[in-house]
Amino acid sequence: MRRAWVISTGTELALGQTVDTNTAWLAAQLAALGIRTLRHITVPDDADATRDVLLQAATACDVILLTGGLGPTDDDLTRQALADAAGVQLHLHPPSLDHLRAFFAARGREMPERNTVQALLPQAATALPNTCGTAPGICIALSGTPCYALPGVPFEMRAMFEREVAPALKRLADGAALLSRTLHTFGLGESDLGERIRDLMVRGRNPEVGTTAGFGLVGIRINAAAPSHADAEALLDQAESDLRRRLGSIIFGRDGDTLPGVVGALLAATGRTLSTAESCTGGLIGTLITDVAGSSRYNRGGAIAYANQAKVAILDVDPEEVEQCGAVSDVVARALALGAARKFGSDYAASTTGIAGPAGGTPEKPVGLVFIGLHTPTGTTAQKCLFGSDAPREAIRLRAARTALDLLRLELMHAVTHEVSGSGR
Amino acid sequence: MRRAWVISTGTELALGQTVDTNTAWLAAQLAALGIRTLRHITVPDDADATRDVLLQAATACDVILLTGGLGPTDDDLTRQALADAAGVQLHLHPPSLDHLRAFFAARGREMPERNTVQALLPQAATALPNTCGTAPGICIALSGTPCYALPGVPFEMRAMFEREVAPALKRLADGAALLSRTLHTFGLGESDLGERIRDLMVRGRNPEVGTTAGFGLVGIRINAAAPSHADAEALLDQAESDLRRRLGSIIFGRDGDTLPGVVGALLAATGRTLSTAESCTGGLIGTLITDVAGSSRYNRGGAIAYANQAKVAILDVDPEEVEQCGAVSDVVARALALGAARKFGSDYAASTTGIAGPAGGTPEKPVGLVFIGLHTPTGTTAQKCLFGSDAPREAIRLRAARTALDLLRLELMHAVTHEVSGSGR
Repeated sequence: MRRAWVISTGTELALGQTVDTNTAWLAAQLAALGIRTLRHITVPDDADATRDVLLQAATACDVILLTGGLGPTDDDLTRQALADAAGVQLHLHPPSLDHLRAFFAARGREMPERNTVQALLPQAATALPNTCGTAPGICIALSGTPCYALPGVPFEMRAMFEREVAPALKRLADGAALLSRTLHTFGLGESDLGERIRDLMVRGRNPEVGTTAGFGLVGIRINAAAPSHADAEALLDQAESDLRRRLGSIIFGRDGDTLPGVVGALLAATGRTLSTAESCTGGLIGTLITDVAGSSRYNRGGAIAYANQAKVAILDVDPEEVEQCGAVSDVVARALALGAARKFGSDYAASTTGIAGPAGGTPEKPVGLVFIGLHTPTGTTAQKCLFGSDAPREAIRLRAARTALDLLRLELMHAVTHEVSGSGR
Repeated sequence: MRRAWVISTGTELALGQTVDTNTAWLAAQLAALGIRTLRHITVPDDADATRDVLLQAATACDVILLTGGLGPTDDDLTRQALADAAGVQLHLHPPSLDHLRAFFAARGREMPERNTVQALLPQAATALPNTCGTAPGICIALSGTPCYALPGVPFEMRAMFEREVAPALKRLADGAALLSRTLHTFGLGESDLGERIRDLMVRGRNPEVGTTAGFGLVGIRINAAAPSHADAEALLDQAESDLRRRLGSIIFGRDGDTLPGVVGALLAATGRTLSTAESCTGGLIGTLITDVAGSSRYNRGGAIAYANQAKVAILDVDPEEVEQCGAVSDVVARALALGAARKFGSDYAASTTGIAGPAGGTPEKPVGLVFIGLHTPTGTTAQKCLFGSDAPREAIRLRAARTALDLLRLELMHAVTHEVSGSGR
């Protein structure tokens, strides 16, 4: 499989003032063409540093992509760096100058003299036409390794890559495919999950399996390399079915699937409705649910019952229960869920009550303690969760919201299986 | 000025499946400490490639930062790469193992055996405590160049950088300053705003001024380079006061300030309370408000009244008004805000009702139409907004939520001025 380095130039990138999205986009395009990116490098607007990185890349990979530094101002140094790396001079490329003049003429303006530099090319290089801007791209061989320099403006870069570079790379690629698939899980920590699939994660294996975790979600990424697209797809399918067999219902989706999207699809499929009663999550569950287009079919609404008074006034929680058990208790979590289901007239309801911190914790009820209530057609329950007394507020809230959604998902899956199996309710 | 390289590891980053935001964040932090980042490098999960990059970095800069690869699974290879680069062995670090066991114990779980690897350290390295996760960071000298390896999970990485790394880097920096400040604005488009401050945005000027925009917010970034911290600070102060004079109340804060944080501070300062009634934003305003620590002082709660039935049942909206004017109307927006203020017993209330799309638009009421209701001690009003019929659902929701918060902010600022000026109410 061919190997690439992807380079980006720009002082604003190097200083961290702009997040570079071009490099990831290009690496994903290369993967889709069956070319593996081995390294990303970002350098400031500095011709010598850029030249050094180009020379290193030329000996280490099969194709180099570079973005940025093709503009008309003094900090645009990619043309010079390419010429230096190739050991040649820059010369004026008349067709590119014509394109520049025509670009400005089409906008009713005369070309500023400054832009002439954009028509300079290293000798023996080829210009790549820019259909959406001024700067032409440049294709040049460095010690025999093809190097493509593209504009830094993302939409110009993408158009030029698709038009000018991708066709050439298809010819360069050896037909090999590098495909990727992600399975999303909830309910098992990254290390416990890793333990169950350890043999699949051994280095050097194909397909390659890796995990990434954040706020309760663990994603399992599968990368398959194969001589053909069909072979790579077959490897992914095999790995996915193996993972599903081992991990069962903790896998809630793949690729673009989200937890609220899956919950929504299950609600829509069963014709059931949902409402929420949120204390410590303060509307986050509602936000996640209504992020899904079409959620009005099943979402009846919710209450943000942060203050005790709101719990009582809006959701008919018994003030004596709040007094006796405290607002953060399984009793109140159940009362909130039941209250929401009744007030909003929904089949299911999820609630949260807890201590998101940073203040408000006690030894008995520490920061990170959250009770999640769940009302279903068969009853009302509550689950106690500890999300860590040192965890930041956002982390506790997000984990609580996701845990509530996952409990709903498991309940709905159970209900669907139950209905399909014919045992009815 | 000291120079840094910032390295990130992860096959998902190298293949472009995840955009690396850690590197930019770290480079910005380094700049704030007066350290200039010369290179960012991303490598896949590959111990040899990581070692090679570390060795190259050690001869080329004054400090190395690295993120990722400290997890418990077999694709977490940073510990090994650091040991290889330093030419030493890994050994078990008992205090880190104690921390790991305590981390799991605090969450009511036993530590999986797998996590023991996270307590391995290269000889002569120092462990950096992780206050929000399992993996300790690692500090080690490579050919005399200090190298800090941090977790890849952004919130763990940021907390560890601020607590453990920044103080050490302050001592390393040589006094030169590269300072940055951001002013946050709401209410004016990026190009209109750019027109008003065009002379300040000329390239090559020090301080350098640039803008970035997203979902209604426009940030104005000021970068100042100077031989000393005090000189750079003075340049920033001068630019900030110039910008404030030109832009007035559209500037709502700077640096870490957020719109809900500023609204919360104004509510807390005036002793007033708030509630929300959200239709198309589905809980997003509530989420933004309760993201702020201490918001329980002024946040009385909210209703997510997505379905019309909920608007009527929970917030006492007159069903005839919904019938006559439609749920998406200024009449209903006002009724929602008034209903929330009454139900939750708050001084202020904000409401939304609109069409977030992608479906549900009509020629009279297109996707992107949102009415924002505002109840204040002096009355109840509604504002009509058009956020674009081709805008994505999340964009419409976020702009609506932010517009509601900004209207609250302006009302509260007006009230504060009014009270301070002694004219009373």
